[in-house]
Amino acid sequence: MIYFRSDYSQGAHPKVLDALIKTNEEHTDGYALDPHSEHAAQMIKDLIGRQDCEVYMMVGGTPTNIITIASALKPWEAVVAPRTGHIYRHECGGVEASGHKIIPMNPINGKLTPALIEEAWLEYEDDHTVIPKMAYISNTTELGTVYTKAELEALSKCCKNHDMYLYMDGARLGAALTSDEADYTIKDIAQLVDAFYIGGTKNGALLGEAVIILNEEINDHYRWMIKQNCGMLAKGRLIGVQFEALLDGGENSIFFEMAAHENKMAKKLREGITALGYSFSGTSTTNQIFPIFPTTMVRELEKDFFFYDWEGYGDDQRVIRLVTSWGTKESDVDAFLEAIKKF
Amino acid sequence: MIYFRSDYSQGAHPKVLDALIKTNEEHTDGYALDPHSEHAAQMIKDLIGRQDCEVYMMVGGTPTNIITIASALKPWEAVVAPRTGHIYRHECGGVEASGHKIIPMNPINGKLTPALIEEAWLEYEDDHTVIPKMAYISNTTELGTVYTKAELEALSKCCKNHDMYLYMDGARLGAALTSDEADYTIKDIAQLVDAFYIGGTKNGALLGEAVIILNEEINDHYRWMIKQNCGMLAKGRLIGVQFEALLDGGENSIFFEMAAHENKMAKKLREGITALGYSFSGTSTTNQIFPIFPTTMVRELEKDFFFYDWEGYGDDQRVIRLVTSWGTKESDVDAFLEAIKKF
Amino acid sequence: MIYFRSDYSQGAHPKVLDALIKTNEEHTDGYALDPHSEHAAQMIKDLIGRQDCEVYMMVGGTPTNIITIASALKPWEAVVAPRTGHIYRHECGGVEASGHKIIPMNPINGKLTPALIEEAWLEYEDDHTVIPKMAYISNTTELGTVYTKAELEALSKCCKNHDMYLYMDGARLGAALTSDEADYTIKDIAQLVDAFYIGGTKNGALLGEAVIILNEEINDHYRWMIKQNCGMLAKGRLIGVQFEALLDGGENSIFFEMAAHENKMAKKLREGITALGYSFSGTSTTNQIFPIFPTTMVRELEKDFFFYDWEGYGDDQRVIRLVTSWGTKESDVDAFLEAIKKF
Amino acid sequence: MIYFRSDYSQGAHPKVLDALIKTNEEHTDGYALDPHSEHAAQMIKDLIGRQDCEVYMMVGGTPTNIITIASALKPWEAVVAPRTGHIYRHECGGVEASGHKIIPMNPINGKLTPALIEEAWLEYEDDHTVIPKMAYISNTTELGTVYTKAELEALSKCCKNHDMYLYMDGARLGAALTSDEADYTIKDIAQLVDAFYIGGTKNGALLGEAVIILNEEINDHYRWMIKQNCGMLAKGRLIGVQFEALLDGGENSIFFEMAAHENKMAKKLREGITALGYSFSGTSTTNQIFPIFPTTMVRELEKDFFFYDWEGYGDDQRVIRLVTSWGTKESDVDAFLEAIKKF
Repeated sequence: MIYFRSDYSQGAHPKVLDALIKTNEEHTDGYALDPHSEHAAQMIKDLIGRQDCEVYMMVGGTPTNIITIASALKPWEAVVAPRTGHIYRHECGGVEASGHKIIPMNPINGKLTPALIEEAWLEYEDDHTVIPKMAYISNTTELGTVYTKAELEALSKCCKNHDMYLYMDGARLGAALTSDEADYTIKDIAQLVDAFYIGGTKNGALLGEAVIILNEEINDHYRWMIKQNCGMLAKGRLIGVQFEALLDGGENSIFFEMAAHENKMAKKLREGITALGYSFSGTSTTNQIFPIFPTTMVRELEKDFFFYDWEGYGDDQRVIRLVTSWGTKESDVDAFLEAIKKF
Repeated sequence: MIYFRSDYSQGAHPKVLDALIKTNEEHTDGYALDPHSEHAAQMIKDLIGRQDCEVYMMVGGTPTNIITIASALKPWEAVVAPRTGHIYRHECGGVEASGHKIIPMNPINGKLTPALIEEAWLEYEDDHTVIPKMAYISNTTELGTVYTKAELEALSKCCKNHDMYLYMDGARLGAALTSDEADYTIKDIAQLVDAFYIGGTKNGALLGEAVIILNEEINDHYRWMIKQNCGMLAKGRLIGVQFEALLDGGENSIFFEMAAHENKMAKKLREGITALGYSFSGTSTTNQIFPIFPTTMVRELEKDFFFYDWEGYGDDQRVIRLVTSWGTKESDVDAFLEAIKKF
Repeated sequence: MIYFRSDYSQGAHPKVLDALIKTNEEHTDGYALDPHSEHAAQMIKDLIGRQDCEVYMMVGGTPTNIITIASALKPWEAVVAPRTGHIYRHECGGVEASGHKIIPMNPINGKLTPALIEEAWLEYEDDHTVIPKMAYISNTTELGTVYTKAELEALSKCCKNHDMYLYMDGARLGAALTSDEADYTIKDIAQLVDAFYIGGTKNGALLGEAVIILNEEINDHYRWMIKQNCGMLAKGRLIGVQFEALLDGGENSIFFEMAAHENKMAKKLREGITALGYSFSGTSTTNQIFPIFPTTMVRELEKDFFFYDWEGYGDDQRVIRLVTSWGTKESDVDAFLEAIKKF
Repeated sequence: MIYFRSDYSQGAHPKVLDALIKTNEEHTDGYALDPHSEHAAQMIKDLIGRQDCEVYMMVGGTPTNIITIASALKPWEAVVAPRTGHIYRHECGGVEASGHKIIPMNPINGKLTPALIEEAWLEYEDDHTVIPKMAYISNTTELGTVYTKAELEALSKCCKNHDMYLYMDGARLGAALTSDEADYTIKDIAQLVDAFYIGGTKNGALLGEAVIILNEEINDHYRWMIKQNCGMLAKGRLIGVQFEALLDGGENSIFFEMAAHENKMAKKLREGITALGYSFSGTSTTNQIFPIFPTTMVRELEKDFFFYDWEGYGDDQRVIRLVTSWGTKESDVDAFLEAIKKF
């Protein structure tokens, strides 16, 4: 069985695992108050070109979203998000369980736009209505698309106009930054958003994300919020050690190398599938692609390949999701393309 | 100044006030555990033709919605609602503050439909997604429209198919039941929904609604939920006494009489405005109507009439909301129609 | 049956009822944005001798507590309260349901002390522990006792030292201020606390309390919090109109007159019971008293008098709670004293 | 520097790390829906001698507590806990943030007793009070003490009488089961409680606990609750793989071997310290001990040893906490005993 199921189906990149092995017997203080977590935080500050921020080692993407949103919003404030966004669709009501409303807007290619934020504001009136205070975006989006610099600048400006925070979910930030569409660096992102996170879980870590809080208003007792919302690890250094390994070398680190590899493998898949005459749902150019195949063909492919059977498309076709990862081999891609040639 | 601002701008219908005066010096137990509240509950059971239910005297519409929804839903369950619905738009995130997600759907004339419920279910997948467990409708809707019997039956059937509760917000139930469009009685409603409330505040009471829980699953420790969610009055009999007065005479009570009057006054306004060549936003036939007037005319009307300046319409027109009430006099309507004739 | 059950077993003082009758047909804006609510707020500012505060008309005591605490506390902050306090014992977990921890301390005569606040702080460590940010007291307490000025000053100083808010639940503030023990006025209270409320429900109103927010940190979007937490009345003026009547005449108003009457009736009861050789649980000098009677006697008394059978005391005695109210007649008291003479 | 700071200051036991290394390149499904997690769950069912239960791989102790309690309790229900209990003291209000009240009782040696549960019930009255529905105990307790079988049986019986759940926090369950005081096995625990967890983090895992739900009422949509409350790992197999390694060999596994080692090292420390004439706070016989030393001595010891400076004791002494771990060497203990001989 060849896996295109997700970018979290294997363990860690060997270098990440090595770092955990090498540091295993060290004694350190708990709860991410250790030298590795501190060092990783400093590496990130250097990478993004800003020292005036706080960096926290987080256990996963959903906790990072829920905790950051709950830290940013007062009880009467809400977060605007694409209806396809992870916080609206795939976090089992976690944001609402923490007491906050999500205002979902129908996105364009999975993206939020200033026009959609303006539309959300039309619903605001007075003390009977929540106040939109944050815009949530994912980059790459849940549909594999990537924001352009112009799009991010426009969102940033719109948020500032409305005294809103702009928050970027970076579960797949590596894939975004190494995509052909990204006309910006991580340094640019750090100038445009109020908070974002660098995803480890979906890019070669065992677990863990690093959240960067650039706006001090969101940073009030953030560690208390981590603890209260189930996000604090006793052996917190685990995340720090992994990010040290992931980001060693900065822009030449395995973090970017793995992401570029993912995108390259996905591109080869996409071009091969296109060459065979199939089309795609959406416009992803990153490591998640959504080809449309006849249903019978999907059922055959499932025997040798493990992927997400996404949704129906017309009467007898289906959209599937193929995801490439740090561990995807070129031979996996070739095998898939060979397989579909038979149909 | 003549008021078309809302149906809660005056105090109580004189008969309601009289009931409060007559019972004022009585001593009773608190927290709605008194003979008046019990009697009112029994009157309602008789009116709706069902004895196998529980009736609670509630302090207001928003508390009734929040408490009933929180009583019905487990933490991982959500409520589907029209995006124009009161719980989504005008309760300041109260449902979410109690931990539950609202799934908003774009309504047709303010109404939820089985097709929209099916569409909401498309977003359900597995343990990463909340489970739609309740459908919320308002009758009349926030746009003044009224569900037909066929529509209610279709919603009821759809909910049953999905093991969902159907809940009706009856803040303006009187207006709905006495409208030309209502091809059913309150007894029919009690056969089709799992819970609903009879609105007092917007139909002649000082304050208070009566919620009817027809599905025992929603009734678990309901009084504890009232207390916990700020809805329990020490002098709870106040609501009971008022509903005794409102519903005295059953279908011939002032509750229905006032509602019919409201609709009649609105109809006269609507027909008068139409005759003068103006059109309306939406299709309301009840006590809220939404005429479209030139902006300059709206500004003039505001000098003598108090109403809600609803929203812009094109470049130089505006939608306003006119609401009639138990206290609206025919002379008020005539004065308004006279006034707009001048333009 | 003679009632000593509670101070909320009857309707409103006749003057309060008259005010509601007189204003019944007025049209005003809703949600407490009306001239009566504004006027009542101004009367209260004058009464307490401070203009630099906000006054809100609230629907009841529990909503006032829950909303004020939720407005004051961030998610990681907690409120210290006597274990007998209303928020800990009798609000069905409402404060916790809104997400906040109560730190209960064993009180002295129902009162919180600086020593108890210091003891609560011993439990604080770091980001694993909530931060005590507010002290909650009731005056009179749930046991009928009254804070002295020295006690309030000491609490105020202790709170300031710890950067905490001091909040007074004034459900029975009238009884406290007119008690023999109160060596201060309402003006003094307004200098010592960050927020408090003047209870109407238990002192002659149909319903309603007036909360005074003296610290602007607690006042952030307070009306949004009222709405979100089920506390906003459509016909909000109801509370305003009642407070206009309650406080008309300031220190000579029926508010203080009724409270003094309650205390006087309770005193007569207390002295009569004492003269007959019975003792009391607690040291209340206000309108709630807790005599200890033989169980058999309690069972006999229950036939003619309605009171709260509080708790057992030794093998064959019980503590009962007698509460006097604005409507308690001297003849009621005489009847009770006559009745116990027979035993 | 020698560490007696905690039992989570190092990484994983070498065998646990090996298991992670060996399985690193495997592809599996995410979210603990993988063969390792399933296998570990089955191993645990066999170990505890019950197949009629559900076992979930959890990311940490606080998430396990918060999620299990939130799964067990309805909004109006509360959990009774020792005031020293982890959920009351060290989870930053997480249980309350999820909406539930903790009823804290003053424990005996860190333990809850049936008498304390009965005392908690004295505070229950009616729909104004939360209903105690669960008793929370830790074993070992936060003070290092261990429940006896008789104590657990008495608690279990008391809970059944009150229709309450008994839940055991097993963050240090290994230390409890291998202590001299434990006159029972893990199989006995599985007969006496409704849910408990086996702690991995504090006994040789990198992270992770395994929760066992024995009462199906607590198991309703438990995975939804994990996701909603930030507890679901994308690479969920990490916990499963570790528990496979920890429990390989059942009662002869490294899980019990490490715990016995911890207790043995603590015993040597305890006996050595006692022999030198010092006393202890509390009666712990497990891997957390609390010696009392002169303050000046504590300050000297801090130069070479890292431990928790627990609290003051009288004017010039302090209680410190020493914790032994799987990695504690006998030479560490000897060094400490040598060091204190100098004073």
